[in-house]
Amino acid sequence: MHVSELDTPAVVVDSGILDTNLREMAAYCAGHGLGLRPHIKTHKIPEIARMQIASGARGITAAKLGEAELMAREGFDDIMIAYPLVGAAKLRRLADLSRTANIIVSTDSAEAAEGISQAARSAGTRIALLAEMDAGFRRCGVQTPAELVSLAQVMTRLPNVDFLGFMFYPGQIRTAPGDQLKLLEGIDLRLKEAQDQLFRSGIELRVVSGGSTPTAFQSHHMKTLTEIRPGTYIFNDMNTASIGATDLSRCALTVHATVVSVAVKGRVILDAGSKTFSSDPLRDSTGSGFGYLLDHPEAILESLSEEHGHLNVELSPYQFTLGERLRVVPNHACATVNMQNEIWRVSKDEVVDHWKVAGRGLVR
Amino acid sequence: MHVSELDTPAVVVDSGILDTNLREMAAYCAGHGLGLRPHIKTHKIPEIARMQIASGARGITAAKLGEAELMAREGFDDIMIAYPLVGAAKLRRLADLSRTANIIVSTDSAEAAEGISQAARSAGTRIALLAEMDAGFRRCGVQTPAELVSLAQVMTRLPNVDFLGFMFYPGQIRTAPGDQLKLLEGIDLRLKEAQDQLFRSGIELRVVSGGSTPTAFQSHHMKTLTEIRPGTYIFNDMNTASIGATDLSRCALTVHATVVSVAVKGRVILDAGSKTFSSDPLRDSTGSGFGYLLDHPEAILESLSEEHGHLNVELSPYQFTLGERLRVVPNHACATVNMQNEIWRVSKDEVVDHWKVAGRGLVR
Repeated sequence: MHVSELDTPAVVVDSGILDTNLREMAAYCAGHGLGLRPHIKTHKIPEIARMQIASGARGITAAKLGEAELMAREGFDDIMIAYPLVGAAKLRRLADLSRTANIIVSTDSAEAAEGISQAARSAGTRIALLAEMDAGFRRCGVQTPAELVSLAQVMTRLPNVDFLGFMFYPGQIRTAPGDQLKLLEGIDLRLKEAQDQLFRSGIELRVVSGGSTPTAFQSHHMKTLTEIRPGTYIFNDMNTASIGATDLSRCALTVHATVVSVAVKGRVILDAGSKTFSSDPLRDSTGSGFGYLLDHPEAILESLSEEHGHLNVELSPYQFTLGERLRVVPNHACATVNMQNEIWRVSKDEVVDHWKVAGRGLVR
Repeated sequence: MHVSELDTPAVVVDSGILDTNLREMAAYCAGHGLGLRPHIKTHKIPEIARMQIASGARGITAAKLGEAELMAREGFDDIMIAYPLVGAAKLRRLADLSRTANIIVSTDSAEAAEGISQAARSAGTRIALLAEMDAGFRRCGVQTPAELVSLAQVMTRLPNVDFLGFMFYPGQIRTAPGDQLKLLEGIDLRLKEAQDQLFRSGIELRVVSGGSTPTAFQSHHMKTLTEIRPGTYIFNDMNTASIGATDLSRCALTVHATVVSVAVKGRVILDAGSKTFSSDPLRDSTGSGFGYLLDHPEAILESLSEEHGHLNVELSPYQFTLGERLRVVPNHACATVNMQNEIWRVSKDEVVDHWKVAGRGLVR
């Protein structure tokens, strides 16, 4: 089937770009001796996670327990849950999950670590733990190298868990790769301090896990790192491209939409709104626009209703017509894929595959 | 099961408030001789649509064809698709759908109306048409009463379609009900002008369909209106409450979330982010906050990661603890429900029902 025969709105993945993204990240990690543990929250699709493992990833990362359960059912046996698991219901499920796959959980409190230890004990299994450090994003993670070491020491003493090492997420770093070095070196220094203290306590540090897509290709500047967990790199998006961390030639994911109204002067209405793109704004300094029109960059996707995309075409010399199809690179690929029940893989305009977004809605 | 036993994040509907919202809108419409055709995009749940019909609605409204197909399969036989249907794939599906239910479609161009006429002809059915007028939102709809009449005249001449009347969506009106009158009267005047012209042409006008939730209870001030299509009223949300179109006592929908990290000073992290709430901002003048904490209004849900809610608690004297559960009224109920696979109905803290969001992801 030709891509133009897909009913719209349709989220389409360019197979050639996907392969390039897979290959380049795997080659970068291999070249620098870094482990690659891609975050599957970006796609939530087991078939794509298998492509990531086949291209050299050592395991996968999930945000929510439900995503990890899905991937374990699909045969993945090395899964990090990069999320603090709290509460009795979660710990019961974690106990069950730990019987079916090797599970690593990151957490930032002794209390949460104790719950995970009890879950593993009740299941008669072992669960690996990472202590999370706040690298400046101010979301999760302990605040100082000393706190990181204390948490690590608690983890080594708890039964049925194995302390693996440290992890962090530098979500605040959204500048061009060349401007990231000072920030990354600062994080590295704090990790080195914790590493040295841990060494003096006689505790083995096996993993330091970091890395987001914007910082991924700068990871070799951090001497403490042993692995990275990029997610968005598999597709890329305008948030990644607008800061110079990638370019349009590496944006694999596009929304194909149809013009459904041209009744209002200066406006063109698409059949894709926030229930297709998500409402995630562009996170650059302008913050304007909900996607980039590949064929008509002068048209601005100015606002989104739930099912309508409002194009401002006042600066466009082009005459848009009813029924015409347009391709839009979304701001945030993870959020856009999460809105879909299914997405399509396309090679040279031929639809070659169809993927169910199996992990959609697994927020628990 | 007690509501506190639901694993989080969980979207919960208060049964008593839902019943009140159903009853008050039905009573308002009955009292003013207005037809009620609720927009099911807010919930996408057939069970709730049935409650709306049972409380007096004459039919339902859908945005996308896929939502209408779902509701037709569920036995609904009077469905307005308030969306311009364009393209061969959509028209084939519309033809099939018109064999199973009475369908009304709104559109703003002769070209789209012709497509719908051909679809009905190919199916051997009749489809009802509404001509859409832009009431100031600048999204869809013809611009002047004269254009509205011209479009109506085209519709009356096309085979296999029945011209029913006019429709509009006043999406730009987001002020307190008392401040809406001048705007609503302006729209009413333009509709009256079109109505008079149509009368002089000898064309019968049976329906003038309008109304959003913020303007719903002011509809009796518009003399031309015969029915309204509110959606959000079934749940209400902070966008509706913040402009004074409802209050918290009528907000039926809350997100129940758990505190998963308190490691960063001044911050508390919830297990619900943009993949639970959506990223829809608060549409009042402040535009700040992604939901209202019922139990701790002084804590601000300042930003959302995909799976984390970032609470700013700097102004809160309360000591939040790991594992604690909090209730949040979301900004935009339609967007929040659309993120869920399922939601729960709760009566006096007991879970009494469980609804699958059957129409989720039906964007085509």
